[in-house]
Amino acid sequence: MTFFEKLENQVCTKQSYLCVGLDPVWEKIPQHLPRTQEGLLEFLLMIVEKTKAHAAVFKPNFAYFEVLGVSGMEVLQELIRKIPPEIPVIGDAKRGDVGHSAKMYAKSVFETFGCDAVTVTPYQGQDALQPFFDFPDRGVFVLCLTSNPGAADFQLPDLHLQVAKKVKEWNVEGNAGLVVGATRPEYIAEVRKSCGQMPFLIPGVGAQGGDLEKTLIAAEDGSKIPYLINASRSILYAASEEDYAKQAGNAAKNLRDQINSCRSNL
Amino acid sequence: MTFFEKLENQVCTKQSYLCVGLDPVWEKIPQHLPRTQEGLLEFLLMIVEKTKAHAAVFKPNFAYFEVLGVSGMEVLQELIRKIPPEIPVIGDAKRGDVGHSAKMYAKSVFETFGCDAVTVTPYQGQDALQPFFDFPDRGVFVLCLTSNPGAADFQLPDLHLQVAKKVKEWNVEGNAGLVVGATRPEYIAEVRKSCGQMPFLIPGVGAQGGDLEKTLIAAEDGSKIPYLINASRSILYAASEEDYAKQAGNAAKNLRDQINSCRSNL
Repeated sequence: MTFFEKLENQVCTKQSYLCVGLDPVWEKIPQHLPRTQEGLLEFLLMIVEKTKAHAAVFKPNFAYFEVLGVSGMEVLQELIRKIPPEIPVIGDAKRGDVGHSAKMYAKSVFETFGCDAVTVTPYQGQDALQPFFDFPDRGVFVLCLTSNPGAADFQLPDLHLQVAKKVKEWNVEGNAGLVVGATRPEYIAEVRKSCGQMPFLIPGVGAQGGDLEKTLIAAEDGSKIPYLINASRSILYAASEEDYAKQAGNAAKNLRDQINSCRSNL
Repeated sequence: MTFFEKLENQVCTKQSYLCVGLDPVWEKIPQHLPRTQEGLLEFLLMIVEKTKAHAAVFKPNFAYFEVLGVSGMEVLQELIRKIPPEIPVIGDAKRGDVGHSAKMYAKSVFETFGCDAVTVTPYQGQDALQPFFDFPDRGVFVLCLTSNPGAADFQLPDLHLQVAKKVKEWNVEGNAGLVVGATRPEYIAEVRKSCGQMPFLIPGVGAQGGDLEKTLIAAEDGSKIPYLINASRSILYAASEEDYAKQAGNAAKNLRDQINSCRSNL
């Protein structure tokens, strides 16, 4: 099964457009868990266990594992292996390089780490993205309009639309998506116009305060999966006591329901 | 000592503007070396040993280590630990993310992996780069005009100059540089005009066929370190027999001398 087939199954079965971001930081992880590789893995697997009924997809961000060095990368590999295989995993790695190096990054995220999809950065153009697109059974989410203040430095006013148009053109395998932040919903409709039907991976709804309803309206494309709404911190750190995983599950369910309720109002 | 102090020492002592890229691929590594973690480390350390008299700086590209998984990351850490401490190391990681994730990447490359400098991608703007700039003793090379065909997709005609200008403005700590490919020397002079004095990390001279002399003329800025010329494959794989390291040393010496000879003609 391809990434998008897996994803469609999950979205339909669970009635969920929710992506749960897995970005572990020691300072926020419940105090009672041991500060070891095992403790970290236990935390993440408990979160997966209690949120998986509501999550269409999981998205570990590589930064939080790499910073822990080799042992962090071991946790990342083990985590991806232990996520139930029917739930796809987006490797949030924001990779980008040229030529042979780009091939190595694609192989790394898809084969070595076994992710079903990846996030990549478009700055270096088509030949830097092609090695990722060349895995037709995997998903490739290209940064388009990010959720941070610095999106205004280069992406606005035009570059994000150029990226959307080019990714549409390069999407020969039908495995592309775009990362479009919820913090600037007023720009999303034009991105949608530029790229046509393809899923948006949308961060910025939870802690960053993006407007969910406006975002969903603007991102709609009439397809089965117009978007995935990501939340990381608001779910992972919903509580810091012994019941953290249960609370994370509740937070995931609430956000899933909130998304569905917005959708039914559209 | 900061990255730039270390670098200046090396450039002056060795009369070298050469950066040796460490991008290992099994298919090209001499057959007599065992296909193990130890074999890979031995290969890289022999290259370092025989090229270090001519290299101002080493630049391992993270992609080639990540693709080997946890054991590759172990080799990368060990390699960086074993490069003589007076020679600075640029972690060619092309990282870029927002908010807390960017902080994690900066900490990872500079602290966990112990690199003196890093390559980063500018697509997400200032707040994505700031966590790297915030290490005043480390160097931050921002992708500006890359050496691949896809540079034409978004970087040209204007974006690369916007990046050069913004990085000049953001370079409060004086620890920024730009990645500027040698494959389009006709654009380099304008980049230099836009950013003022800061070192260029210049790939594309060896295997990619960039014009060395034109590049050096255009990149000159009258400072002690206007540029670092990177070569990876043409040095690493200068020979595939038992004398591979010696031949790599010769290739490094030749390119260093060729750079100096061009400089003396300017």
